[in-house]
Amino acid sequence: MNIAILFGGSSYEHEISIVSAITMKKVLQKSQLTFIFVDQNREFYLVESAQMQSKHFSSGAYRKNKKLSLKKGGFYIGALLGEKKITFDTALNLIHGRDGEDGKIASLMEFYEISFISPRLEASVLSYNKLYTKLFAQSIGVKTLPYEHLTKNGNRTAAMPYPLIVKPVRLGSSIGVSIVRDAQGLEYALDVAFEFDNDVIVEPFLEGVKEYNQAGCKTDEWELSIIEEPHKEEFLDFEKKYMDFSRDGNVLAAQIDEGLAERIQENFKKIYDPLFLGSLIRCDFFVYKGEVILNEINPIPGSMANYLFENFEGVLTRLAGHLPKEKPIAINYDYIHSIQNAKGKA
Amino acid sequence: MNIAILFGGSSYEHEISIVSAITMKKVLQKSQLTFIFVDQNREFYLVESAQMQSKHFSSGAYRKNKKLSLKKGGFYIGALLGEKKITFDTALNLIHGRDGEDGKIASLMEFYEISFISPRLEASVLSYNKLYTKLFAQSIGVKTLPYEHLTKNGNRTAAMPYPLIVKPVRLGSSIGVSIVRDAQGLEYALDVAFEFDNDVIVEPFLEGVKEYNQAGCKTDEWELSIIEEPHKEEFLDFEKKYMDFSRDGNVLAAQIDEGLAERIQENFKKIYDPLFLGSLIRCDFFVYKGEVILNEINPIPGSMANYLFENFEGVLTRLAGHLPKEKPIAINYDYIHSIQNAKGKA
Repeated sequence: MNIAILFGGSSYEHEISIVSAITMKKVLQKSQLTFIFVDQNREFYLVESAQMQSKHFSSGAYRKNKKLSLKKGGFYIGALLGEKKITFDTALNLIHGRDGEDGKIASLMEFYEISFISPRLEASVLSYNKLYTKLFAQSIGVKTLPYEHLTKNGNRTAAMPYPLIVKPVRLGSSIGVSIVRDAQGLEYALDVAFEFDNDVIVEPFLEGVKEYNQAGCKTDEWELSIIEEPHKEEFLDFEKKYMDFSRDGNVLAAQIDEGLAERIQENFKKIYDPLFLGSLIRCDFFVYKGEVILNEINPIPGSMANYLFENFEGVLTRLAGHLPKEKPIAINYDYIHSIQNAKGKA
Repeated sequence: MNIAILFGGSSYEHEISIVSAITMKKVLQKSQLTFIFVDQNREFYLVESAQMQSKHFSSGAYRKNKKLSLKKGGFYIGALLGEKKITFDTALNLIHGRDGEDGKIASLMEFYEISFISPRLEASVLSYNKLYTKLFAQSIGVKTLPYEHLTKNGNRTAAMPYPLIVKPVRLGSSIGVSIVRDAQGLEYALDVAFEFDNDVIVEPFLEGVKEYNQAGCKTDEWELSIIEEPHKEEFLDFEKKYMDFSRDGNVLAAQIDEGLAERIQENFKKIYDPLFLGSLIRCDFFVYKGEVILNEINPIPGSMANYLFENFEGVLTRLAGHLPKEKPIAINYDYIHSIQNAKGKA
């Protein structure tokens, strides 16, 4: 199996995508990997495996790599005498944040008919935007926290009691997220969050809530990871999260009873099937007052949540064999022909 | 103003997109137009204005036109000695159905940083999928009809009383839509609808309901069309709709009182702003038992609903000057540098 790792992108999470890609090199040992970097100008570069070190990108050295162009069926290296297609079996969309998670990469892959592992277009839009995630979850009977939606030029107060958590609607990796305990804190947190997005949601901050992470995908059967109880501080700031994205060792399963594990898994399955077919996602749940509550969907989780699977490479390889394909549409111009015929008779 | 009309696409509505594009040639007399055809294989062709006749496409003659490639900043004609960029001020996404309305063209234009008139990515996904339109409308306080969601491999019965209207979730132009009056009719209608989509919605069919269409966009101010009461049969079949897509004459405003007109306009504005900024859409409303109910959002209406505007070309030209731009994201590798420094010290 030759997997093309697509990483980088025009995103606040550009750098952690690089870290995730470097981690893939460590954990996908049996696969052939083709690294395709999307730089901040959205130019594609073919990066050699030996060059997969953060410095190669931060120093700008990647610009000496071959540029690729995206066309029907794949990525091409330009050459004086014609073009050469880069060969791989499937692409893995590993671009966190904008471009990767918002649906653009999924659109490009579908439009150019390239096999790819990633949430598809609808799944991307519904999970990248935290407001739409709420609407979607509600529609399938998955609980989420209550929230208030604030807009950049709108009202800057919250009706809910403190403490609150403030999040830009369209970002991951805790960027722009703050916990606030009073009105002054809220004012400052909104300034920060509105730097990143025109839409912000405010939710109750549940002190000491239990959090559980479940990753997985569906092939011929469900391929669910262990459930992890992440031991973290209040929440991860960007640098800690950054380190988090390079995780490659296995972790221990949370010590929870079977009933709770099943309820977490059932919620995961409701979210995943059918919207997320073709992708491997991680859902973060809270358990509060006995209820399982969706906190967030990570449509392209850091380092693909490899550390939650006993055999991550096996799961990913099987997923590559179970990717949804767009329906072919044959266009035969029947209607135009019939209109033309009708006109001819008139 | 030079507008590039993007039309065609890999869609059941490919042919009506051609008709819409031909109509644009008739109604945009003061603008320079560049016609870019997306064929069923998703190859781009530059079509000359004089060739804009349906036969040019149905006969396959378009294949003799110059092929274009999509790259950063625009469309390019390949040439032995370098490439030449096609110049235009803004693209108008006129691809009805898949590719155009599902978010793919919006993604391509944003990714390659090309100015374009069209619903953006989120607006596309929420309006192309009739289920998500319901969720969205509900979230902003716009009424829609009750519905049941049926899936291809699921239960094939409806709990609602007949008559019912059956619609594939992801199609426009009444394709695959049926009105059914009994269980046998439903069975047949579902067979038809599931030919087009794995998801179908069933709604009550409101006999003799009043329908009103409102088109518009927002520039410095609201640019709303007249409200039309379309005089049509039960609903348009594909061929009648097809003729409908070539409308270019002005129509008369519906004879309704000011209060109702205002309520229709208020509903339109709630739907449009901010989700649809950058696009010109048409919303079809029902008025039933005194309530204004959203029937559907046409994110790329047939012939751009030009016939509803007194000065369509003026509206479109002003809209071209009010297109939302993606926020630029500067990537300076601060985090990678700080991690590298920390490692250096360790």
